[in-house]
Amino acid sequence: MRADGVFITLEGADGCGKSTQAELIAPALEVAGREVVRLREPGGTPISEKIRAILLDPANAEMCDQCELMLYEASRAQLTREVIEPALARGAVVLCDRYYDSTYAYQAGGRGLSDELVRRANALGSCGRTPDRTLVFDLDPATAYARATAGGADRMEAEGLAFQERVRAAYLRLAQEEPARVRVVDASGEKSAVLARALDALADLVDVGRP
Amino acid sequence: MRADGVFITLEGADGCGKSTQAELIAPALEVAGREVVRLREPGGTPISEKIRAILLDPANAEMCDQCELMLYEASRAQLTREVIEPALARGAVVLCDRYYDSTYAYQAGGRGLSDELVRRANALGSCGRTPDRTLVFDLDPATAYARATAGGADRMEAEGLAFQERVRAAYLRLAQEEPARVRVVDASGEKSAVLARALDALADLVDVGRP
Ligand SMILES: Nc1ncnc2c1ncn2[C@@H]1O[C@H](COP(=O)(O)OP(=O)(O)OP(=O)(O)O)[C@@H](O)[C@H]1O
Ligand SMILES: Nc1ncnc2c1ncn2[C@@H]1O[C@H](COP(=O)(O)OP(=O)(O)OP(=O)(O)O)[C@@H](O)[C@H]1O
Ligand SMILES: [Mg+2]
Ligand SMILES: [Mg+2]
Repeated sequence: MRADGVFITLEGADGCGKSTQAELIAPALEVAGREVVRLREPGGTPISEKIRAILLDPANAEMCDQCELMLYEASRAQLTREVIEPALARGAVVLCDRYYDSTYAYQAGGRGLSDELVRRANALGSCGRTPDRTLVFDLDPATAYARATAGGADRMEAEGLAFQERVRAAYLRLAQEEPARVRVVDASGEKSAVLARALDALADLVDVGRP
Repeated sequence: MRADGVFITLEGADGCGKSTQAELIAPALEVAGREVVRLREPGGTPISEKIRAILLDPANAEMCDQCELMLYEASRAQLTREVIEPALARGAVVLCDRYYDSTYAYQAGGRGLSDELVRRANALGSCGRTPDRTLVFDLDPATAYARATAGGADRMEAEGLAFQERVRAAYLRLAQEEPARVRVVDASGEKSAVLARALDALADLVDVGRP
């Protein structure tokens, strides 16, 4: 097992269960004696939260795709420098609910921005840092949509099933391109069953306290 | 003379006289019958002004270089799509007080961020658009500093003369690299003398109403 920091990101379409699994994975790692730093994107620092507020404000509906992309990257850069890098340096496990693969899946996959453009922007916003492991929670969009809308729809969810299907396909492409980093986790079924699969997909990197 | 839009940017270190010249150049072009759209960076759209507020708020002193860079690009992208491109499409002259060369001169030249990084970020934030002509108002830093601080120092000006000298050198590099676009204008002497030089450096692109 590595004694140094481990950077884990949780990805997948809206409603697939990322936040739910973050709440379950964190204690499993803590039981095994690790400091866990839980983060969500966009946000996680005072400056990043101010940027998040601009991104999510419905009054800013005229925002162009490129501006939105740069704002996500600005928020990410600050989170990376101010929180992620120091946490990794002191040996913590960083568990981040969305990171740059979300930008790829939504902006390039969902919205159709150029792949190259989004990849270049991601390289800038992540300050060149790559997660050690990325779990893509995979679920058929109809089930994910049903889960997500049970709690009330947001802007992304309003885009509909075809959009979510493009997002899903983009995530699966990433898993094919970078199999060592990106692991697809079947997100169907009981929360505990999904958790067991998620921990399996982390076991080579970090000790997990099995319940 | 071109009937279509002309994109002109005004550049140079703090206090060299960009804003002063923008006020003088605009009427000279209007007298010649052109619609002139005056803009300043960062800002110029409601979203860009919100981003500007984050950039200039002293409470955000912990902002990392990369976050700052992405915020400038986000503001620029929105200004480009929402204002500059429509104005050029209807045939106006866009006169922009700072654009991406400022990011190059200050972030790469002044602060020492990697040239490549800043150039890639600029390509993203400008949505691939290049000014038709860029005037770099060139002045020895001591004179510029004296002009600028007469009205009270801001964050940039607080960086001192050595910083301003690096900014100036970066601008002069750009003029060497792209002589067709970037023209150095001697910014010393009377405002009217500087204006005459600025109009000379625009005369091949746009009709100027000589006083
Ligand atoms: N395995 C599961 N079975 C049934 N419901 C689930 C399961 N996992 C999560 N849920 C429920 O689905 C909804 C969405 O889950 P969650 O918020 O964790 O998804 P998310 O991926 O974080 O979504 P978003 O992308 O919108 O943040 C929640 O109400 C959650 O309780
Ligand atoms: N040719 C000139 N001679 C003397 N003073 C000048 C001249 N041009 C401008 N000034 C004065 O110098 C000060 C700075 O000018 P100005 O604000 O136009 O510079 P700027 O390049 O826009 O600066 P900043 O980068 O800080 O926006 C102002 O007080 C202005 O009146
Ligand atoms: Mg969530
Ligand atoms: Mg000015």
